Amino acid sequence: MDLDDPRRPLLGHVPQSRARRLANKLCSLESWRRRVPITIWLPNYKLDYLLRDFIAGITVGLTSIPQGIAYALVAGLPPQVGLYSSIFPGVVYSIFGSCKDVTVGPTAILSALLAKYVAKSVDFAYLAAFLSGCIILLLGVLQLGFVLDFISKPVISGFTTAAALQIAAAQLKTLFRVEGSSGNTFIDALINFFKHIMTIHLWDSALGIASIVALLLLKRLPTGGGGILAAVSLHASRARNALVVLAGASLAAGLHARGIVPFALAGKIEGGLPHFGLPPFSTTVGNSTLNFEEMLSVFGAEGLVMPLVAVLESIAIAKAFAGGAGVDVTQEMVAVGACNVAASLAQGMPATGSFTRTALNRAAGVATPAGSLVKASVVLLAVTLLADAFYYIPRAALAGVIVVAMMSIIDFSIVITLWRNNKGEMCTWAVTVIVGAAAGLEYGILCGALADLLRLLLAAARPRLHTHLFKVGNIDCMSVTLVGAVSYASAEWLPRKLRRVVDSPHSPHSPHSLHSPHAPRLLVLDGRHVHSIDVGVAENLLSVILELEKDGYVFLLWNFPDRCRKLFQELRPEFERKLVNGPSIDQHVLGLDIIGR
Amino acid sequence: MDLDDPRRPLLGHVPQSRARRLANKLCSLESWRRRVPITIWLPNYKLDYLLRDFIAGITVGLTSIPQGIAYALVAGLPPQVGLYSSIFPGVVYSIFGSCKDVTVGPTAILSALLAKYVAKSVDFAYLAAFLSGCIILLLGVLQLGFVLDFISKPVISGFTTAAALQIAAAQLKTLFRVEGSSGNTFIDALINFFKHIMTIHLWDSALGIASIVALLLLKRLPTGGGGILAAVSLHASRARNALVVLAGASLAAGLHARGIVPFALAGKIEGGLPHFGLPPFSTTVGNSTLNFEEMLSVFGAEGLVMPLVAVLESIAIAKAFAGGAGVDVTQEMVAVGACNVAASLAQGMPATGSFTRTALNRAAGVATPAGSLVKASVVLLAVTLLADAFYYIPRAALAGVIVVAMMSIIDFSIVITLWRNNKGEMCTWAVTVIVGAAAGLEYGILCGALADLLRLLLAAARPRLHTHLFKVGNIDCMSVTLVGAVSYASAEWLPRKLRRVVDSPHSPHSPHSLHSPHAPRLLVLDGRHVHSIDVGVAENLLSVILELEKDGYVFLLWNFPDRCRKLFQELRPEFERKLVNGPSIDQHVLGLDIIGR
Repeated sequence: MDLDDPRRPLLGHVPQSRARRLANKLCSLESWRRRVPITIWLPNYKLDYLLRDFIAGITVGLTSIPQGIAYALVAGLPPQVGLYSSIFPGVVYSIFGSCKDVTVGPTAILSALLAKYVAKSVDFAYLAAFLSGCIILLLGVLQLGFVLDFISKPVISGFTTAAALQIAAAQLKTLFRVEGSSGNTFIDALINFFKHIMTIHLWDSALGIASIVALLLLKRLPTGGGGILAAVSLHASRARNALVVLAGASLAAGLHARGIVPFALAGKIEGGLPHFGLPPFSTTVGNSTLNFEEMLSVFGAEGLVMPLVAVLESIAIAKAFAGGAGVDVTQEMVAVGACNVAASLAQGMPATGSFTRTALNRAAGVATPAGSLVKASVVLLAVTLLADAFYYIPRAALAGVIVVAMMSIIDFSIVITLWRNNKGEMCTWAVTVIVGAAAGLEYGILCGALADLLRLLLAAARPRLHTHLFKVGNIDCMSVTLVGAVSYASAEWLPRKLRRVVDSPHSPHSPHSLHSPHAPRLLVLDGRHVHSIDVGVAENLLSVILELEKDGYVFLLWNFPDRCRKLFQELRPEFERKLVNGPSIDQHVLGLDIIGR
Repeated sequence: MDLDDPRRPLLGHVPQSRARRLANKLCSLESWRRRVPITIWLPNYKLDYLLRDFIAGITVGLTSIPQGIAYALVAGLPPQVGLYSSIFPGVVYSIFGSCKDVTVGPTAILSALLAKYVAKSVDFAYLAAFLSGCIILLLGVLQLGFVLDFISKPVISGFTTAAALQIAAAQLKTLFRVEGSSGNTFIDALINFFKHIMTIHLWDSALGIASIVALLLLKRLPTGGGGILAAVSLHASRARNALVVLAGASLAAGLHARGIVPFALAGKIEGGLPHFGLPPFSTTVGNSTLNFEEMLSVFGAEGLVMPLVAVLESIAIAKAFAGGAGVDVTQEMVAVGACNVAASLAQGMPATGSFTRTALNRAAGVATPAGSLVKASVVLLAVTLLADAFYYIPRAALAGVIVVAMMSIIDFSIVITLWRNNKGEMCTWAVTVIVGAAAGLEYGILCGALADLLRLLLAAARPRLHTHLFKVGNIDCMSVTLVGAVSYASAEWLPRKLRRVVDSPHSPHSPHSLHSPHAPRLLVLDGRHVHSIDVGVAENLLSVILELEKDGYVFLLWNFPDRCRKLFQELRPEFERKLVNGPSIDQHVLGLDIIGR
């Protein structure tokens, strides 16, 4: 086997130019059809699919209604906004979406991010959906999805955990019906809750906790064994959110009829269809009118976190359900962008893929994106026909629905994996969670990304030198291996490290190892796995090598790529005789007059 | 030879803890003496050194006087400020400096950076010296010199070139004595010059150009051959700045005695010693008084570029003259910091190592930092005794001195090296020069550093995969080698790339190569040179490998570090049987039931 042949072929040469590939792509009908996936799946639609899509759509719809209302309330919006945001994006996703399982609608995290803007004016919700949609569409069309690669898994996980913690903590206020605000961060929410804990309402608390217990029990309903009982418990488990909210609303309505109103209720919902039209580009906050520019400045740079999170959520979900390789990231971005623009045109809030509803959709056996259309119809029916019934939904039951949803998102198990594998990634995760919980979710994701960047810088500044002692004939040799792109950030450190490693191969702190009998005087700098060397590093490296040669060491630079060899010779022409190539270093070592030195 | 034994020992284990080493260091007298190098060289001073230091001190002093005056004028300060800044920092450097060659004083680049603050009030110069000194001292004491590692050679080179271009262009105004301002950037300076080109003064222009020609000729005086003539021309060449300025001043004084004043003159210099004391912590700009905080906000974050540049200049020079390994970076930072604090206490402007004067110092044969003391005395004598004579120095002659100094700094030769070695570094250089010349030097260095960061990110996001085809017995195999720290930024790209490389080892665009007779089905992922893998990459990599195995490929993961092996098994327990170790892959390949598949 000759795995280490230095004349390794480098693959990845692309015969077609990038521009040409792009041109081919733009001209083919097939690639345009890929951008509107309904043109691919609808012509192949089978009757068999219809039933599956129907069942899945109804199941997901029944969850979308309570969650839509709950998330609208999280953002501080009227309940119907959350429902509208399930309907129209759902229709659009069935046209442009490429993953059959994904269901689009308002999510807890987007709602939490939106809340502080909505506190100023409801109009910010619609504008946020519009701007997020435009930004996502733009990223998709310009194929800029790769910027998401710089948000690492620990940051995403930390962000999700911090968001779930904050959202759950903010629900404490509603769950126990205490006074005060729900707070803009996890810490805020906890402080507010404990500050007003004496204003707790017993009935709401009881209902809220009962809802949580009921949801957890329904989730764990035994569905095995077959038969009608199993089928009933399967459906009860899948529709648990709707069932719990329905039970709460029935109870509240029954008591209301008797003139008792022990719970805080969702309140009057403006049913019917939304007003269609462009989102508002100016708004009134307090006594002053903000124009478009002033609204933009309210969003600020932090506002960019909303489209970013929408894309991250949606693509992460698509990958989880479609398998890593099967997701067309560009198409998903186009679809989610279009969904948000659609939401904004129909009085909706920002929407994206929802993990729980997508999982439900798949479990219910959805066959095509038509399931999304059925779901939208179910929610549309509810908002037009049942709006009056929604009045009686107790807020504590909705809070229970949210808290249980958040419990399934919070994920501390990754901590162990990160801790074992890489303390740096663990720190990134911790920074994201702590900053996210204490200072706000936007700052969490930002600081997490910066922590990752710092890790990258550190890795570039402190590359590892692999060393290995070996013999050629009687001659003790040591090889020092450089790998990858040797970057400018290591220009000072790498030559110093080389000197330290060379000066003390056995005992790192003995400066006189050269005089010990087994210390190698012959050093092979192994460049087989070097991809590039920045000029500053090369200069310093060659200087140190020359200094070490003055101390009696002999260097060979083995199998560096051509570009590096040329650079070395340009910087120090005397290096020409030290640059050697070939599958084995032995002949070069034996060719040296090392014994005579 | 067994260079590739995978059980390579990783050197660099440090037996002493960092804290212990630090404690040892703090307790030893020797390490404290290293912080005050005069305690080391003065006791060993020899009479022989005295003459050498004396000659070098006078030579450098004669250059420091015209340059000091010129650079003070560049910053918009009274001429004596530039001289004070040569005197007191010179004395301090002789105490704390560790490199005998380095001479400290005002430099063209620092003056250019300072000019825009001095335009508001002269007090900013003294405060800038004080704050820069404190910041540099702090960086030195806290051993934070490593932050400079992130300023690459192309950025330093580009910054120096942009600065030299800007300073030279700004001198056009003085050289030709045109109206208008000298401009804050290279482009500005050129625009201003050409806008007012009709106001050119003939006599100043003639004198300025004559000075430049004289300086260039004196620089190239033949000094070989020995004898008195050679010695005279050597000294004339070294004292050329003083000679040219002296000639200009004599001419101007002679004409002045006859009542003719054809040149713009340096003007009245307040001679004698400066007022000692703390720098001003408040100042008056126009009609309003700025307190310390307001002065700080005038400097802003950009103000940090001054200490940064002071350190970079000084350390780059020390390294160039003392050899890469011989420079104690921390000590240089302490020395330069102390020099700047000293300058600020004695009405001086920011100072740092000067390349031209350091080169002159070495060429004149300086033996110890005492040369710096002699230089300081020469400048002190001049400012106390010759202040009245300085009145007659023509500004055009000073501009000539500056322009010639800048011509030696501008360096386009690096472009060819960068272009051949690395287009990315070339771009960094170009960004630094272009932004520096068009928008200001501070922005140049900032954008250059960001461009470097982008290169780092790109390298992390798009690591190279080395592939190699080989045979074990009859079995066609391909190895794919990962190296270094495999970072989160490649989490999406690397698995995609692996799939592409595996699917098409011979023709990158044939998706059916598996069915061609020579396409290897056995793939060895070579992890010998991997240092770490981020969790996100590992997850996606394992997913793609499992998908590829479904397509009929067989994978072996060879010699990954223990930490990675554990991570793989934790993520996908079924990978245990694929993780193989050992010096040769052959036995593992032959052990597979690949023929039967």
